[in-house]
Amino acid sequence: MKVVLGVSNRHVHLTKETYSKLFKEPLEVVKYLKQPGQFASNKFVTIKNGDKEISKVRIVGPFRKYDQVEISRTDSHYLKVDPPVRDSGDIKNSSPITLIGDDGKIYLNEGCIIANRHIHITPQELKQYHLENVKKVKIRIDGEKAGIIENVYLKIADSSSFELHLDTDDANAFNVKTEDKLEIIEMEEE
Amino acid sequence: MKVVLGVSNRHVHLTKETYSKLFKEPLEVVKYLKQPGQFASNKFVTIKNGDKEISKVRIVGPFRKYDQVEISRTDSHYLKVDPPVRDSGDIKNSSPITLIGDDGKIYLNEGCIIANRHIHITPQELKQYHLENVKKVKIRIDGEKAGIIENVYLKIADSSSFELHLDTDDANAFNVKTEDKLEIIEMEEE
Repeated sequence: MKVVLGVSNRHVHLTKETYSKLFKEPLEVVKYLKQPGQFASNKFVTIKNGDKEISKVRIVGPFRKYDQVEISRTDSHYLKVDPPVRDSGDIKNSSPITLIGDDGKIYLNEGCIIANRHIHITPQELKQYHLENVKKVKIRIDGEKAGIIENVYLKIADSSSFELHLDTDDANAFNVKTEDKLEIIEMEEE
Repeated sequence: MKVVLGVSNRHVHLTKETYSKLFKEPLEVVKYLKQPGQFASNKFVTIKNGDKEISKVRIVGPFRKYDQVEISRTDSHYLKVDPPVRDSGDIKNSSPITLIGDDGKIYLNEGCIIANRHIHITPQELKQYHLENVKKVKIRIDGEKAGIIENVYLKIADSSSFELHLDTDDANAFNVKTEDKLEIIEMEEE
């Protein structure tokens, strides 16, 4: 069974309130992503910790109920933060970070994470692929940088497109890219 | 069986001739590395392709018989080069790149690679660990970013220290660091 890959570069999700402290202009859609309703916006923030910062970090819309900054371990070494590997939305006691927009900046007490490896899937697809009761799977990758990626969680939602999300560290370690079709090899029951 | 990890950040190896075109001052030892005779030097180059460059890339000594630039896939995306995954020294038809030193610059027709995953080992250790006739092994990593790293080649030399070398992409994808002890799980015969 194969799943299409989408590589997630560093990005942020913001509440409407936080956004309004960082930007005066409205957030606009540049391109809709595979996951329904999600879009690459026209706005970027700088993320900062101490004297280290990374600019041009894209805001992914729409607005959410929480502020979340998703970075790679490579980014975290550079920024000297130590974020936990988490499911999106699970930000309690995650790393603090500062966001700088065109018109303001804000310090977040928590919100910086490394996103876990996951697959977006609908309940209908779960049945179709016989993945009911499966919590996570493994992905096998061939080639010179071959291997097996474990702890890939199934994220079930009615409105979703069947897609594997890996961060840039995982994608670069295994030399795979967005639109590659990767093999699911093993399921771990709940 | 466990092996200690050394994470290789991007670095360059130079011939004496190439070095002399880039620097007037002599190359000095800052710190000896685990592999006998190898050292982190006091000199850094900028590596450049088109209008993209990465500064502060350390020269690892001593001088070699060839010029070689070892970068990660993450670096290669940034620099817009597409180096092959290669054994150190196997640079034929690898990517061209420009090197800039304190006192000069040079364009290399080839020499930029992504180093393959490898373990330094002596013939004596090969016998001790029952790895004779083994060409490559797999490494198992636990934790939230668990998985299996394949195509880890054994590099046999009388003068070597038993050590696994991974680049920063592999290390960051699996959230491991220098001095971690990792498990060898499977051997592939020659």
